[in-house]
Amino acid sequence: MKKGVMRPGHVQIRVLDMDEAVKHYVDLLGLIEMDRDDQGRVYLKGWTEVDKFSVVLREADEAGMDFMGFKCLSEEVVDSLRAELVAFGCEVEDIPAGDLKDCGRRVRFVAPTGHAFELFATKEQTGKWGVGNHNPEAWPRGLKGMQATRFDHCLLYGPNLDRTLELFRDVLGFDLAEQVMTPDGKRVGQFLTASMKAHDVAFIDHPEPGKFHHASFFLETWNDVLKAADLISMTDTSIDIGPTRHGLTHGQTIYFFDPSGNRNEVFCGGDYHYPDHEPVTWDAGELGKAIFYHDRQLNERFLSVLT
Amino acid sequence: MKKGVMRPGHVQIRVLDMDEAVKHYVDLLGLIEMDRDDQGRVYLKGWTEVDKFSVVLREADEAGMDFMGFKCLSEEVVDSLRAELVAFGCEVEDIPAGDLKDCGRRVRFVAPTGHAFELFATKEQTGKWGVGNHNPEAWPRGLKGMQATRFDHCLLYGPNLDRTLELFRDVLGFDLAEQVMTPDGKRVGQFLTASMKAHDVAFIDHPEPGKFHHASFFLETWNDVLKAADLISMTDTSIDIGPTRHGLTHGQTIYFFDPSGNRNEVFCGGDYHYPDHEPVTWDAGELGKAIFYHDRQLNERFLSVLT
Amino acid sequence: MKKGVMRPGHVQIRVLDMDEAVKHYVDLLGLIEMDRDDQGRVYLKGWTEVDKFSVVLREADEAGMDFMGFKCLSEEVVDSLRAELVAFGCEVEDIPAGDLKDCGRRVRFVAPTGHAFELFATKEQTGKWGVGNHNPEAWPRGLKGMQATRFDHCLLYGPNLDRTLELFRDVLGFDLAEQVMTPDGKRVGQFLTASMKAHDVAFIDHPEPGKFHHASFFLETWNDVLKAADLISMTDTSIDIGPTRHGLTHGQTIYFFDPSGNRNEVFCGGDYHYPDHEPVTWDAGELGKAIFYHDRQLNERFLSVLT
Amino acid sequence: MKKGVMRPGHVQIRVLDMDEAVKHYVDLLGLIEMDRDDQGRVYLKGWTEVDKFSVVLREADEAGMDFMGFKCLSEEVVDSLRAELVAFGCEVEDIPAGDLKDCGRRVRFVAPTGHAFELFATKEQTGKWGVGNHNPEAWPRGLKGMQATRFDHCLLYGPNLDRTLELFRDVLGFDLAEQVMTPDGKRVGQFLTASMKAHDVAFIDHPEPGKFHHASFFLETWNDVLKAADLISMTDTSIDIGPTRHGLTHGQTIYFFDPSGNRNEVFCGGDYHYPDHEPVTWDAGELGKAIFYHDRQLNERFLSVLT
Repeated sequence: MKKGVMRPGHVQIRVLDMDEAVKHYVDLLGLIEMDRDDQGRVYLKGWTEVDKFSVVLREADEAGMDFMGFKCLSEEVVDSLRAELVAFGCEVEDIPAGDLKDCGRRVRFVAPTGHAFELFATKEQTGKWGVGNHNPEAWPRGLKGMQATRFDHCLLYGPNLDRTLELFRDVLGFDLAEQVMTPDGKRVGQFLTASMKAHDVAFIDHPEPGKFHHASFFLETWNDVLKAADLISMTDTSIDIGPTRHGLTHGQTIYFFDPSGNRNEVFCGGDYHYPDHEPVTWDAGELGKAIFYHDRQLNERFLSVLT
Repeated sequence: MKKGVMRPGHVQIRVLDMDEAVKHYVDLLGLIEMDRDDQGRVYLKGWTEVDKFSVVLREADEAGMDFMGFKCLSEEVVDSLRAELVAFGCEVEDIPAGDLKDCGRRVRFVAPTGHAFELFATKEQTGKWGVGNHNPEAWPRGLKGMQATRFDHCLLYGPNLDRTLELFRDVLGFDLAEQVMTPDGKRVGQFLTASMKAHDVAFIDHPEPGKFHHASFFLETWNDVLKAADLISMTDTSIDIGPTRHGLTHGQTIYFFDPSGNRNEVFCGGDYHYPDHEPVTWDAGELGKAIFYHDRQLNERFLSVLT
Repeated sequence: MKKGVMRPGHVQIRVLDMDEAVKHYVDLLGLIEMDRDDQGRVYLKGWTEVDKFSVVLREADEAGMDFMGFKCLSEEVVDSLRAELVAFGCEVEDIPAGDLKDCGRRVRFVAPTGHAFELFATKEQTGKWGVGNHNPEAWPRGLKGMQATRFDHCLLYGPNLDRTLELFRDVLGFDLAEQVMTPDGKRVGQFLTASMKAHDVAFIDHPEPGKFHHASFFLETWNDVLKAADLISMTDTSIDIGPTRHGLTHGQTIYFFDPSGNRNEVFCGGDYHYPDHEPVTWDAGELGKAIFYHDRQLNERFLSVLT
Repeated sequence: MKKGVMRPGHVQIRVLDMDEAVKHYVDLLGLIEMDRDDQGRVYLKGWTEVDKFSVVLREADEAGMDFMGFKCLSEEVVDSLRAELVAFGCEVEDIPAGDLKDCGRRVRFVAPTGHAFELFATKEQTGKWGVGNHNPEAWPRGLKGMQATRFDHCLLYGPNLDRTLELFRDVLGFDLAEQVMTPDGKRVGQFLTASMKAHDVAFIDHPEPGKFHHASFFLETWNDVLKAADLISMTDTSIDIGPTRHGLTHGQTIYFFDPSGNRNEVFCGGDYHYPDHEPVTWDAGELGKAIFYHDRQLNERFLSVLT
């Protein structure tokens, strides 16, 4: 949080059928439906999140990610970073308060990888769902499905990783927590964090810009990963891989798909990062183990991404 | 235990290189080396096992299982079951005490699936390793690797499952805990138990007799399955599949290979069985989910077995 | 199961207020309400149990246990054991089929400790709740509270432990799995099993006959024990002790009270027993550690029991 | 990390007998001995910590904490915060580089609670023990005992909580994550964090200044808390309370004592905090539940602290 960017604040995901999508994200992942807007968008959050929402579903003809937003410490931070983004050469779009319901103004920019990101500082706070912050119980009763605790990060595919690292590190104050390097010194994977988490956003080198690999949600324990895997089977949900562990970040994970084909991850555990830590480096020759620590090889699907 | 057969008492496994095998079963699985004999065989056990050994490694030119032995309540039980085996039509071989070190006489027979089994009642008891039975601590210090607690069961491939069921059920007093049935009523998988465990031995229908799929060892928790998977990667051990759950028995599992190509399983959890329980039935059309509950499809390797 | 007694089949518990009790056992413990009878008794079970019920609640002026019943392999076993009980000197009472709804005839006797036990062989089987036995999912959706999987055992206080051991071992075919011995060789605690479980019923030496310490229910994991403890707090339920581990059996446990003052246990893990295992012996001087392995001392409440 | 303070960097603990202390912190907690200095001090760390050490043991006649140090982003941050500390009215002591082996200069100050704290920015980095940061395995082999992953925080007792909050919040940039408030609005407990962790240092109101309640170390899972509790018993280590959960922060925990009487905590889990989160507030009337969530009452020992 060197420059006032705190965390991933929201992701807007395109879905082909809203009813099916809500069933997936609410009944299976266990996100809480918090609101809908007059465009038909549905606002969700994990139960530990203090802000009103972190996931926005938008019905569209094509699946994928519209944008990912980061919450900043203050409006002043947003102003200051906006200026730095412009100086860096980013085109910046100002989106007025209220465009996302109960969310303040946002500053949108496109990273060199082709993905749309946003900065914002103001969003209604409804508190941790079901427990609040006054003598709070350990967890709320009535959670559904996988009981996802929070939206955690996105993994995105696109070109220009070096320039994107400069943007996130130098302009936005992120740290490079982990990286994948080819023998000739090209960075083909970079995991970036604004806090102690092993990643708030991660990028894999890919020739096409703006590709969406997955949105990830945090679970409490490896037992919860098992139950998530069980629920994936019980609900005939399409699985990608897992339960397994990543080499990168060492999180314990499972990948699966929403009914529109968007990949989701639920995971637990994983390493922590502080700004004085050297980046963890994985050799590209060990990419299989870096991604799927137990199988030590990529499945074909890992390389498939959405527009 | 309707007719006095208590549990799997031992399995003799052929390995191509004894030093590598001992390293695998002791350092990685965490079995305890208990003894060696003048034939060069190595005797191992899991730490919770009271008998002196449960796994015997024999160096040979070809991997696979020599035989699996069941421990009976008494020598009288062995006598009585020997007579019933003969009446059933089994060829029976009497192996004198001492052929396996510190083990009493064994009665060997070949099941219609082509596998060699044994009954015995006498083996030296050395007690639970490292804790004993006087004010025992919860677990011993100094365990290695996966800390396997016991030899649990074998999965075997061969023909004549119906006749083999008759042998185990009617002669030896096992229960049919779980089965896989084709639409036309053929049993192509059968999981048999002499106690509360979901399986003490299991068979999959296969045209060739006497095939060995895996020997299985019990772990305490799903966290131990994760650590086992981690150790498989750390030691560059060949993995088959997992961590995952089985549909059959619902155990949480990982499959991997010893240096000779013998498949091992370590698992935890799983259902329990009592003699008044109807068998659990899986449709052969659901075999993928029955075997690998999360992926819901067999990997190609599952069908590979050793002579 | 040397003589055909399979397992604890039911326990009838007296409660002061049925509505409160049902709320406790169903909403908190997660037992399933299966039926009620015209005496107002409520029939419950854990979701993994195949028989229709295992817990019977009866409203009365005083809390405690009415009786505990063991299920036998067959009616012939019940007949044979009935004769042996009479020969042993037990007064035996024949209770006709239907006295407990959908349960066959029962043979009731009083052990030397003053507790009423029953043998029966017939009870309606409704299968595992929510999953059945045809392509069964790993667990049913819709479980409540602690999600107790089964009624496991009772711990009872009373005199005459030696004679009671003779009854359970020699007449009923139980094994002595664990015992607590004073320096002068008096057995002051005995844990008895008819199967692989570390205990199906346990006794602590106590001058007054027929005392009820607790009925115990099985959970799947140590994480479930944590969540059970959380739920105890969230519902303002009276806790006794835990989460902790027992030295005896090494199970991981928590004790608490139902609204009538009956002590409940939920636990997971623990050792297994086979008939050829020597009993585990704890010295009475180590009783604190034997009961509560971490605190290594008894709390005062442990000695409190109900009539 | 609003003002460049990253994390707890070290704690110096006084012990009565160094050999016993090293045995406790290395063999039981599983910290790694990294070095010793010519004063006889012993330097330890948890395996995930990148800096060379985080715990310093000093032999003395009285147990307790000498000081706790926070690592800052840069020497410039230390300079700047030094000036602010002086402006705040703190007496500041400059300790030269090398006073702690392989550690840069430190700025020491005494908080209004009477505890000595330090700021520093430079310490030798030896990397994560046994895994490093190049294709790192999930965890190192050869860890001992509880396998503590890092020094996490201290809980301290003393007066002047309001002024201490001003110091940590306004001067050092910490957040107030959780607090305990009396009905008349007095803050009697405050949990402060410089990052996402629920606490980096916490204070309980107490008339005597400079008291030491415990130093806390992080474990990975609730299963590790169980094994830690088991090890406490196996080694006849004095236990305070647990395994249990805290209400404050909701971490899962166990308290015990080193051979000198210093209280240790090992814990896992717990809530996370961001700077835009309102503090969690516990009513002092719920202090029992706030501290020990399951028992819902303080044990007498909780109030005992060291000089």
